[in-house]
Amino acid sequence: MKQFAIGIDLGGTNIKGIVMNHCGESSHITRVPTQAHLGGSHIMENILELIRQLIDKHGDPSTIAGVGIGTPGFIGANGAICGGAKNLPGWEGTQVFAPIVNQFGLAAYGTNDATAMALAEGKYGAGSGKQNVVFFTLGTGIGGGVITNGHVYQGAGGRAGELGHIVVETNGLPCTCGMNGCVEQYASATGIVQHALWVCRSHDEPAFGAFAKAVQESPESVTAKLVYDYAKKGDSTAIAINEYICERLARAVGAVLNTLAPDRVVLGGGVMMAGQIIVDTVSRHARHCCWPDIFDRCDIVAAELGEDAGAMGAAALVFENE
Amino acid sequence: MKQFAIGIDLGGTNIKGIVMNHCGESSHITRVPTQAHLGGSHIMENILELIRQLIDKHGDPSTIAGVGIGTPGFIGANGAICGGAKNLPGWEGTQVFAPIVNQFGLAAYGTNDATAMALAEGKYGAGSGKQNVVFFTLGTGIGGGVITNGHVYQGAGGRAGELGHIVVETNGLPCTCGMNGCVEQYASATGIVQHALWVCRSHDEPAFGAFAKAVQESPESVTAKLVYDYAKKGDSTAIAINEYICERLARAVGAVLNTLAPDRVVLGGGVMMAGQIIVDTVSRHARHCCWPDIFDRCDIVAAELGEDAGAMGAAALVFENE
Repeated sequence: MKQFAIGIDLGGTNIKGIVMNHCGESSHITRVPTQAHLGGSHIMENILELIRQLIDKHGDPSTIAGVGIGTPGFIGANGAICGGAKNLPGWEGTQVFAPIVNQFGLAAYGTNDATAMALAEGKYGAGSGKQNVVFFTLGTGIGGGVITNGHVYQGAGGRAGELGHIVVETNGLPCTCGMNGCVEQYASATGIVQHALWVCRSHDEPAFGAFAKAVQESPESVTAKLVYDYAKKGDSTAIAINEYICERLARAVGAVLNTLAPDRVVLGGGVMMAGQIIVDTVSRHARHCCWPDIFDRCDIVAAELGEDAGAMGAAALVFENE
Repeated sequence: MKQFAIGIDLGGTNIKGIVMNHCGESSHITRVPTQAHLGGSHIMENILELIRQLIDKHGDPSTIAGVGIGTPGFIGANGAICGGAKNLPGWEGTQVFAPIVNQFGLAAYGTNDATAMALAEGKYGAGSGKQNVVFFTLGTGIGGGVITNGHVYQGAGGRAGELGHIVVETNGLPCTCGMNGCVEQYASATGIVQHALWVCRSHDEPAFGAFAKAVQESPESVTAKLVYDYAKKGDSTAIAINEYICERLARAVGAVLNTLAPDRVVLGGGVMMAGQIIVDTVSRHARHCCWPDIFDRCDIVAAELGEDAGAMGAAALVFENE
């Protein structure tokens, strides 16, 4: 068994690469620009250049087991991107595995970026030591990934973990996917901002507090971070928004708990910069959203690996396939 | 690798036992009464007697890899029943594994009965050849089981698959579990009967049809089977009840699909005596309850193994642990 793997995390702005060992220790962390506007084959050239740099820095290619890629969207059985990468126009259809195999003689593996993050958190981060882990990433949208029996779970076509589209409100807010009431419409950064704007627009008494006043004065500057800055200062409107959001997120967590009875649920993504307040509020509500025996066997925690999770998970995918 | 396994399916009335080979071919199917009223240790005596009979009939104990047990409730790490077996008073706390090991020198394994059925359908029945299968059992209540990456998925404490308590209606019907809107309140046999009674009570015009008339004349004789007998004959009230029920079941299926992206969903249990009408109606609604890409990769089918599924899955559990 070779000791190292290369992990690539493809983002909209940068491509991050690492060399990682079996213990999750990474080295030679490197970034190159994605240059998404130049199209799919150019993105692939940048990925190959990054791999070349990582191999050079690492020094001994014979100790590298392969290259893993975490990408927006999905990789088909033929090694080409097959849908779901809307923020990278032209990336769909690009052949990902063959150029790596051909240029470096290294095995190539790939998965959705949220699944890669789930694998990293499950193996080396907040889910470490647990067999069954579900990861929610709360960003502009909501994504997720699943670890079962200690291994990454990809599902049919790598599609497992569309946790943002679990319905949590009957006849709820319309979602971009065509359904109504998806959790993404409530607990993503976008959903939080929309709810904050709605709440603050519907009231105009001065007693409504500092957060509402700030929103009314400058609605375009509302962010999830602003909501949580005020919530942590005790602003009652911001606290009520957090409760509303986390109750709906807890309903999605509850559905996942009843399905999988995971040992741990890990909450990550940009919204989780707010930290423990979300973990605590979701945990309080989730208790009432699933079978009690299952809730008692699961804990809900914040992600630990931060921005390296995607690249680490991509590298871990190589070890998963050995 | 030994060629055969014994599978035991513990029910409220009978205990069924089989000897099964790796191909899912079973022989020596035997039943003894559960005699649940005599308590847990008596149930265990009956299980041991059944195993004795199966070994005698099979002839060569050296070819038997072990004994698997599917039971209402759950088996703890110590081999004793630890909750969830409400229909078998006194069964909780009973040591299941040690007596089998001691009396027969055979390895013992166990799981929840719905999980055993899921494993059987996944390996040898309607999910055969698929890596990722979710099984719903629609009976008096709703249970379930999950197969991931070709293997049984038990979750923390064997609790995975509490699919009956996925919430499908915000502020919906109160459930015995303390939540509101659990799918079990709608799509179990009990839920179907309650909904039929409610629908037929709320209307009394003669135009309401033959099913409503039958229900109004004899409400105590309503069963899920009666609903489906009339639905198949084209009775509009019974058809509307089926739509209502299957739409809510489809919401639970949708939540599970978004989480796991299974290759196949298998619907089993007594309610599924109604057959294809439920599969068709759930499929039609489920398309609108999950991510389209995931729906397109999954098919929804009826269970195939019937009453032997529990015992077959219990035997398969032995092979899973080899």
